[in-house]
Amino acid sequence: MKHSGLLSVAGLVTLPFSGCSSTPPAEMLTPAIAMPEWLRNVEEEAFGHPMPGDEAKLKFVIGLAAENVRRGTGGPFGAAIFDLDSDQLIAVGVNSVVPAKQSWAHAEMTAFARAQHKLGTFSLKNCILATSCEPCAMCTGATPWSGVEVVLYGAPGSEARAIGFDEGDKLPLWKESLMKRGIRVSGPMLQEEARQPFLLYQNSRGKIY
Amino acid sequence: MKHSGLLSVAGLVTLPFSGCSSTPPAEMLTPAIAMPEWLRNVEEEAFGHPMPGDEAKLKFVIGLAAENVRRGTGGPFGAAIFDLDSDQLIAVGVNSVVPAKQSWAHAEMTAFARAQHKLGTFSLKNCILATSCEPCAMCTGATPWSGVEVVLYGAPGSEARAIGFDEGDKLPLWKESLMKRGIRVSGPMLQEEARQPFLLYQNSRGKIY
Repeated sequence: MKHSGLLSVAGLVTLPFSGCSSTPPAEMLTPAIAMPEWLRNVEEEAFGHPMPGDEAKLKFVIGLAAENVRRGTGGPFGAAIFDLDSDQLIAVGVNSVVPAKQSWAHAEMTAFARAQHKLGTFSLKNCILATSCEPCAMCTGATPWSGVEVVLYGAPGSEARAIGFDEGDKLPLWKESLMKRGIRVSGPMLQEEARQPFLLYQNSRGKIY
Repeated sequence: MKHSGLLSVAGLVTLPFSGCSSTPPAEMLTPAIAMPEWLRNVEEEAFGHPMPGDEAKLKFVIGLAAENVRRGTGGPFGAAIFDLDSDQLIAVGVNSVVPAKQSWAHAEMTAFARAQHKLGTFSLKNCILATSCEPCAMCTGATPWSGVEVVLYGAPGSEARAIGFDEGDKLPLWKESLMKRGIRVSGPMLQEEARQPFLLYQNSRGKIY
């Protein structure tokens, strides 16, 4: 094992692997995010019931966003990953920033992470992301890395901004940027329905972070 | 726990192991990402040794990137979160996309997640992000949400692209966009050192994803 000047300059010491099998569970680099029980039930109920068409998928994730507010388990955003061929649900996601104390835990990100964990791959080929609201700058940037081939979204970003959420600074042509990478993008869609989680959140005086 | 004193330096709370609980763990929405043992050792050794100045912090994260390649635990990217006042390390991060099978597990994202978990907050106020390479589109978008007040980076994005990594489509004025939000951005810096992890990776024929 060679040690370059980089590590020694930084004052680090490289230690060998212990190889001991009786050590306590390995420490984690990043924490798991807990799943609300209602969300697990919704996911389980949806398995095996294909949701053909863009609107059915969007209605499902708008429902997740609304329920996330009602249950007090996070912000007014829901997402899910579907199989492109079968229209079957693979994994759900909801905004979990405040309960999980993790700033990256947007609905789209948790859906990507959960689907990749379930499928055992970092690339969601042949998959659809459906999300209740236009993805923010982070989630838009994460989309090509996720491997999904289709993005469906409900509310435009302006709806989130209208109640105080920050979408971040995105490329004006963010849709074209994704489409150039072979990702189909459709939205905004079902805008009246997609507004409802935001109204619920506003009425519940949810925390805007 | 042997490192409790170190954690208290950074104002952290030591969490008990969850593995010994008699109740079955609740299902998780997203998985934890495992920490390579070498990385845990490096982090523990660094606690309690402040790293004043931008260059010391960057040398440290460039060292993480290089070691991540040598150990075969991920891509050639390293990051860390430091306290802005004390220059103390709070948390490390490395690219873990391939071993964790999680497309979002870039060095900056894992550092954000780990630091937020340790500090028990989704907002890293009064913190610095140091990263071995210019952040990609996702990590740039994630930076305002993380709460960090300073971003230091080593290699320009062109170095990553030169060996086949995709940085994503960013705003041409991404630095100005962060600075308008009150985040100081400095880089590229230490470009010669920051190139080394990429050369190591290329020589090791690392997987470009």
